[in-house]
Amino acid sequence: VPWRITLAYDGTDFQGWQAQAPGSRTVQGEVEAALARLCAGALVRVAGAGRTDTGVHAVGQVASFELPRAMSPRDLLRALNGLLPRDVRVLDAAGAPDGFHARKSAVSKLYRYVFDMGAVQIPTRRRYAGHVPGPLDRDAMAAALEVFRGRHDFASLASAGGSARTTVRTITRADLEFEGDTATIEVEADGFLRKMVRSLVGGVLAAGRGTHGAASLRAVLEARDRAAWPAPADARGLVLVRVDYPPGALRV
Amino acid sequence: VPWRITLAYDGTDFQGWQAQAPGSRTVQGEVEAALARLCAGALVRVAGAGRTDTGVHAVGQVASFELPRAMSPRDLLRALNGLLPRDVRVLDAAGAPDGFHARKSAVSKLYRYVFDMGAVQIPTRRRYAGHVPGPLDRDAMAAALEVFRGRHDFASLASAGGSARTTVRTITRADLEFEGDTATIEVEADGFLRKMVRSLVGGVLAAGRGTHGAASLRAVLEARDRAAWPAPADARGLVLVRVDYPPGALRV
Repeated sequence: VPWRITLAYDGTDFQGWQAQAPGSRTVQGEVEAALARLCAGALVRVAGAGRTDTGVHAVGQVASFELPRAMSPRDLLRALNGLLPRDVRVLDAAGAPDGFHARKSAVSKLYRYVFDMGAVQIPTRRRYAGHVPGPLDRDAMAAALEVFRGRHDFASLASAGGSARTTVRTITRADLEFEGDTATIEVEADGFLRKMVRSLVGGVLAAGRGTHGAASLRAVLEARDRAAWPAPADARGLVLVRVDYPPGALRV
Repeated sequence: VPWRITLAYDGTDFQGWQAQAPGSRTVQGEVEAALARLCAGALVRVAGAGRTDTGVHAVGQVASFELPRAMSPRDLLRALNGLLPRDVRVLDAAGAPDGFHARKSAVSKLYRYVFDMGAVQIPTRRRYAGHVPGPLDRDAMAAALEVFRGRHDFASLASAGGSARTTVRTITRADLEFEGDTATIEVEADGFLRKMVRSLVGGVLAAGRGTHGAASLRAVLEARDRAAWPAPADARGLVLVRVDYPPGALRV
């Protein structure tokens, strides 16, 4: 029976989403372990829509898998939340049509990056927001964000080790908001390369500090020169907010 | 030289503000240890405006102490933040007039309590918000909050072990706001008894669940019957926001 679940997690104590070397604690590993306990030890492979990196959070990750036995969505949600550690929660569970795949069926994803610009960061924010003590040029940051909108080859923003066949992506939304000393960047695209959002935010921060202008970022983007791109922003400020699917892909 | 500092901390890993039995990790203990390192081992006693309990956070705690040597406020702030653990930060440091005492000179304090009412709490909120899965009657919660406004004997809301001479306090502000499934209660008073805010929120939650109405809370308040008061709310949703002083108490 195919399933689609929506997950939220605190990425602080995870080495990202994807199951890796034995001994590494990953969200995928925890969900698969919980499903194995639910299914008499059967291996249930889980596909995640976004392969979030070490320390990256989620409030709307989507995962898909097939269960060897029938269950009600309500019971699956409750059983999984009973078996999962407190830093991963299932927010929703629903049956999925045959062939549904959390990553391959997705048409867009929304990520949010939050950072504090004050000299001293409030400790209750340190796990869930980056800290970039100012002064930062807010207009320059907004101008830099314009560079990324639309369809581009984002090879400059991809970390080594990514498995994508093409590095062309379309960013359909890129917003920057300030509230006091806190900045929030939201980026929506048809897909993201490995470390792409954090690299994008790194570019925006470089513009804010005055080390790169929008024109220079555009030149590096067009040159597809990863080595010339500013350092990626801290993982802790990043959260996978939402994954969207075409209506047909969800119809059971 | 007398000092006043403003502190923020993540209360999760502290057994509250006040230095207690040896081996307990407290905010006061950490600040005193940092000051001792700054002052060649001298014991510097620190007074906090609010004696926050285990797990309670602060974004605007105020503390006072006397230093045996002169320093600039900027250097004191930087030195302390260099010596303190990451879950305590000094936001501001300023000279204080002789006789200034963070608790005794204060005229009012503002606490905020945040809780999520959805069935499943997002993991990135679990350290800094209570979780009270609904359904809760929002109008009944707002009505219950009215009970506390003004001058009352709050003996019913004080936990045993408090050292206050009188249990009469004046609540000058008590607000409740909803945003989606999250509720925020802000309470300002001339002072608070031990566990008073969490007991107050416990009363509001009892009203939301329908186990106590505003009239019944008022009756228990007037009867000064601690045993009849609903259980206090979780510490993790509570934060000390601000401490106010008369202008004269800050003038150096």
